[in-house]
Amino acid sequence: MQIAKGVEWAAHAAALLNALPSGKGLRAESLARYHGVPGPYMAKQLQALSKAGIVQAARGRHGGYRLARPANEISLWDIMAAIEGPAPAFTCTEIRRNGPCGAKPAECKRPCAIAASFHAAETAYRESLKAKSLVDIAVDVVGESAHEHLRDVGRWLEREAVSLG
Amino acid sequence: MQIAKGVEWAAHAAALLNALPSGKGLRAESLARYHGVPGPYMAKQLQALSKAGIVQAARGRHGGYRLARPANEISLWDIMAAIEGPAPAFTCTEIRRNGPCGAKPAECKRPCAIAASFHAAETAYRESLKAKSLVDIAVDVVGESAHEHLRDVGRWLEREAVSLG
Repeated sequence: MQIAKGVEWAAHAAALLNALPSGKGLRAESLARYHGVPGPYMAKQLQALSKAGIVQAARGRHGGYRLARPANEISLWDIMAAIEGPAPAFTCTEIRRNGPCGAKPAECKRPCAIAASFHAAETAYRESLKAKSLVDIAVDVVGESAHEHLRDVGRWLEREAVSLG
Repeated sequence: MQIAKGVEWAAHAAALLNALPSGKGLRAESLARYHGVPGPYMAKQLQALSKAGIVQAARGRHGGYRLARPANEISLWDIMAAIEGPAPAFTCTEIRRNGPCGAKPAECKRPCAIAASFHAAETAYRESLKAKSLVDIAVDVVGESAHEHLRDVGRWLEREAVSLG
């Protein structure tokens, strides 16, 4: 079971957008360059985030992305679901109904204990990610927050950020 | 993010092996037929369970599978890890080190908050599955345990089970 790399990229992109001054945005190409990843693939993640209402793109000459809602209302689960889709990872195909001793539909009104256990585990997973907002992760996402490094990031943002209408 | 179907199959197969009388086993083909799934694919899951020390195969004319350790010592996480592998689903590629503001190695001794949050969520997922043993799921895995149905399963097991040395 593997989570697409795009989840990592999207989470880091959203964290960087959270560091933007008010009224500013970043173009997809800036976000790709900042993270050292291919532009088209970063653009794809941003489109998925946009579709999910996590970022919004401003149109026009200075088009750029910004967060679509307050950072404390955007969780890592929101980002994961935007990129990977919200479907459960465990798919129950009801094999208990198969074969020579297949259970009858009337005996299968509730999920079996195996499916229920996997769903409970996924709920625990989601709840854990839902409890982490962009605000929670802001502190050390760019490393251990060396002052010099944060200053570099700030200068880069000043240079790259575009004004949004 | 999808979990392979084999995890469902392996979990149901292990649950059925747990219902065997002592000293008995089931051949891979019987387990496949019981669950109405292709023999070679069920055999593949059983080999993975065997490699992980969850089931053991008896050799010889009456070769069959049985659980390799007590059912209360086999969790759904053990089964999931046997089939999917134990690697984390979230892979951190350290993109914070990339690009024009890449963090220096000395600033990256700890996982970043994004990686740490995904790892914490996976820990919650694993703990949830580790808390469910084959004993916990035995009760209603074959449906809602209609008496008649359990009798059918018992009869089928009597007929199909092979004696192990």
